[in-house]
Amino acid sequence: MGTEIGSGDCLAWAARDASGTLSPYRFNRRVVRRDDVRIKITHCGVCYADVIWTRNMAGDSKYPLVPGHEIVGIVTEVGSSVKGFKVGDHAGVGTYVDSCGECEYCNDFLEVHCSKGSTFTFNAVDSDGTITKGGYSSYIIVKERYCYRIPDGFPLAMAAPLLCAGITVYTPMMRHKMNQPGKSLGVIGLGGLGHMAVKFGKAFGLKVTVFSTSESKKEAALKLLGADKFVISSDKEQMESMTKSLDFIIDTASGDHLFDPYMSLLKVGGVLVLVGFPSEVRLHPGSLSYASRTIAGSLTGGTKQTQAMLEFCAENKVYPEIELINIQYINEALERLVKRDVKYRFVIDVQNSLK
Amino acid sequence: MGTEIGSGDCLAWAARDASGTLSPYRFNRRVVRRDDVRIKITHCGVCYADVIWTRNMAGDSKYPLVPGHEIVGIVTEVGSSVKGFKVGDHAGVGTYVDSCGECEYCNDFLEVHCSKGSTFTFNAVDSDGTITKGGYSSYIIVKERYCYRIPDGFPLAMAAPLLCAGITVYTPMMRHKMNQPGKSLGVIGLGGLGHMAVKFGKAFGLKVTVFSTSESKKEAALKLLGADKFVISSDKEQMESMTKSLDFIIDTASGDHLFDPYMSLLKVGGVLVLVGFPSEVRLHPGSLSYASRTIAGSLTGGTKQTQAMLEFCAENKVYPEIELINIQYINEALERLVKRDVKYRFVIDVQNSLK
Repeated sequence: MGTEIGSGDCLAWAARDASGTLSPYRFNRRVVRRDDVRIKITHCGVCYADVIWTRNMAGDSKYPLVPGHEIVGIVTEVGSSVKGFKVGDHAGVGTYVDSCGECEYCNDFLEVHCSKGSTFTFNAVDSDGTITKGGYSSYIIVKERYCYRIPDGFPLAMAAPLLCAGITVYTPMMRHKMNQPGKSLGVIGLGGLGHMAVKFGKAFGLKVTVFSTSESKKEAALKLLGADKFVISSDKEQMESMTKSLDFIIDTASGDHLFDPYMSLLKVGGVLVLVGFPSEVRLHPGSLSYASRTIAGSLTGGTKQTQAMLEFCAENKVYPEIELINIQYINEALERLVKRDVKYRFVIDVQNSLK
Repeated sequence: MGTEIGSGDCLAWAARDASGTLSPYRFNRRVVRRDDVRIKITHCGVCYADVIWTRNMAGDSKYPLVPGHEIVGIVTEVGSSVKGFKVGDHAGVGTYVDSCGECEYCNDFLEVHCSKGSTFTFNAVDSDGTITKGGYSSYIIVKERYCYRIPDGFPLAMAAPLLCAGITVYTPMMRHKMNQPGKSLGVIGLGGLGHMAVKFGKAFGLKVTVFSTSESKKEAALKLLGADKFVISSDKEQMESMTKSLDFIIDTASGDHLFDPYMSLLKVGGVLVLVGFPSEVRLHPGSLSYASRTIAGSLTGGTKQTQAMLEFCAENKVYPEIELINIQYINEALERLVKRDVKYRFVIDVQNSLK
C-alpha cells in the first residue's frame, strides 16, 4: 500500500505501517444517517494514544490508520432525527463513537464501559464493518449520542484536549469526590493529564500540590497553572514532611514509580486515583490497611459526564494549555510527545492546515 | 524471669518469651478512676494477633505478655463520672483502650486512627507508663469511651469475636457501601474474618460467593454460613465464568495470592477491600483502570461504629461460629490457629476455666 494518497472527499493524515510516520491520505466516510451529525473538524488534540496506535505498540493497528480522538469542529449537516444539534453548532467527539446503547452501563451513561464494548474513534471495527478513522481529518460523521455540545464562546482549540485528557481526570475526580473545596490534592506528573488535574483541582477550590521528578517544572506549576505547592518526588525530606497531609492524589505518571511513598502522604481514608499506565502497581498492604486508604483506577468518562465537564469548564474558565500546530508538523510533534517535550497538549489546527 | 507466676489479684495467662508458650501469671491492674469501667471477664476471643505478639513476630513484644483483644464480661465497678455503664451490665473491650480524644480522628470516632496513636489493648505503653495487658485475664479496667455495651440477650461468648474479627470486616463493608441488598459480594478466605464477612453479607441481603483454595470448605460455606455460591479459586474455568459479576470483594486471605484474577471478577466501578495481610499487593494497572475498579484497605473500626455493629448483630442475630475452649487449652489452640484448623474462632471460657 505504501503511502498512496487514496481517494475520497475526506482529507486526512494516516500512518501506513508500524513506523508510525503520518502522511496525507484521502478516504470516504459514510453518508449521514438519520441519527448522525456531520462535523467539519477545526481542531484535533494529540494524545499519547495516537503514538501507541500509529506505531502498533498495542499490536492491533489496522493500516492505513487515521488517529485523533480529541475532535472539535462545526456541524455542517444533521440526520432527520437529530434533536440536539443544528448546522453551525460547535461540536466535539471524544474517544468513542458508538456502543450498544442498551446495556446497564449504556443506560447509566457509562458508554465507554458498554458490556458489548464501545467503538473507539479510530482503529476500531464500526457497526458497518469499516475501520473507524479519527480526527486527523477534515470531517467526521458520528451518531448524535456520542457528540458533545461545545459551550458558546469556548475557544474551539482549547476544547479539544478536554475530550480525552480532560475527561480522563475529571471523571475519577468526580467519582471519588475530589471536588470538595478546602481539601488537599496531590498531582503526580505534569503532562497533558496532570496539568488538567491541577486546573480542575483549583477550579474545585482544592489546595493543590504538584509532585514532579524535575525542578524545571516548578515555575510553570506554581505560576502558570496556579498550584499551591511543588515537591520534587525524589527529595525524601520534602516527601516525608507531607506525611498524612493529602485527602486525594491523582497519579498521571506512566513511568514506573513506587506507590508506597505517595500512599503515606494520604490522610486516613485518603484516595489515590491512577490514570497513568505504569507497567505494574505494587504496594505494601499496610499502605492500604493502616490508614484505610484506597487506590482506584479510571479509564475515561461517559457521555453525560463529558457534557457536564464541558459546561463546568465553560463556567469556570478552565482552559487547557495548548501548543497549536499545523498538521504538517505532526510527525515531529509525536516525537516530542514521546520525549514529554510539550506544554501541555498539542492541538492540530486542522481547518487552517489540512487542505 | 522464667515462668514465675508473679503476684496480684488479676489472674492471667502470659507468654514469657518468643517461644510464645503461655502459662499462668498474676499481676495488679490500676485502681478504678472516675472515667473507668471494671469488667469481670467471662470470655476472650483468640485472634491471630495473639500469635504474632506472643511469639514476637513483630519484634516489639514486651514480656510477660498477656494477649487477648476480643474481651467480653460483666461490669463490677464504675468510676464516679461513668454514665453509660452500671454494675451488672454486659460490656466488651476491643483492640484499643485509649487515644488522645481530641484530634480530628478521635472527634470523628475513628479513635484507632488517632493522630497521636491509639493505645492497643495489650503490649502497648499506657498513659501511666505500664504495659497494657489483654483479655487472657480475670478482669480489666478500661476508660468508658473504649468499652462497648453488649446488647441484652446477646450470647456473651459469641460477642467476643465481634470486637476484632467482626468490626474489622464490618467497618470497610460499611465504608464502601457493601450493605446494599441485592448486590453481589465475593469473600476470599474463610477464617475468622471471612466467615464474618459471609454472615454480614447475608445479613445485608447480598448474594455471597465464597472463594477458597480448598473444596473441604464448601459444605460449611453453603450450609452452615449460608453463602449462595462456592468457587475454588484455582479453577480457571469457574473463575472466568464469573468475570465482571461482582459488585464487591472482601479479601481476608493473608497468604500471598494474585490480585488480577479477582479484580477481573468485579463489575465496572467494583471495589475490593483488603483486610488480610499478604506480603505485597501487586496488580496490573489495567485491573484498576479498564473498569474503574478500586482496591482499598482497612484496619479496624472506631468506637461509634463498633457499638453500631453490636446492635446490628443483635437485631439481625448475626452470631459468629465459635469453638469454646478452656484457658488450659490455649497453647494447642494457638498452634491450631497457625495451621488454620479452627471453625471459625476460638473463644476462651475465661470465667469457668481461669481460676
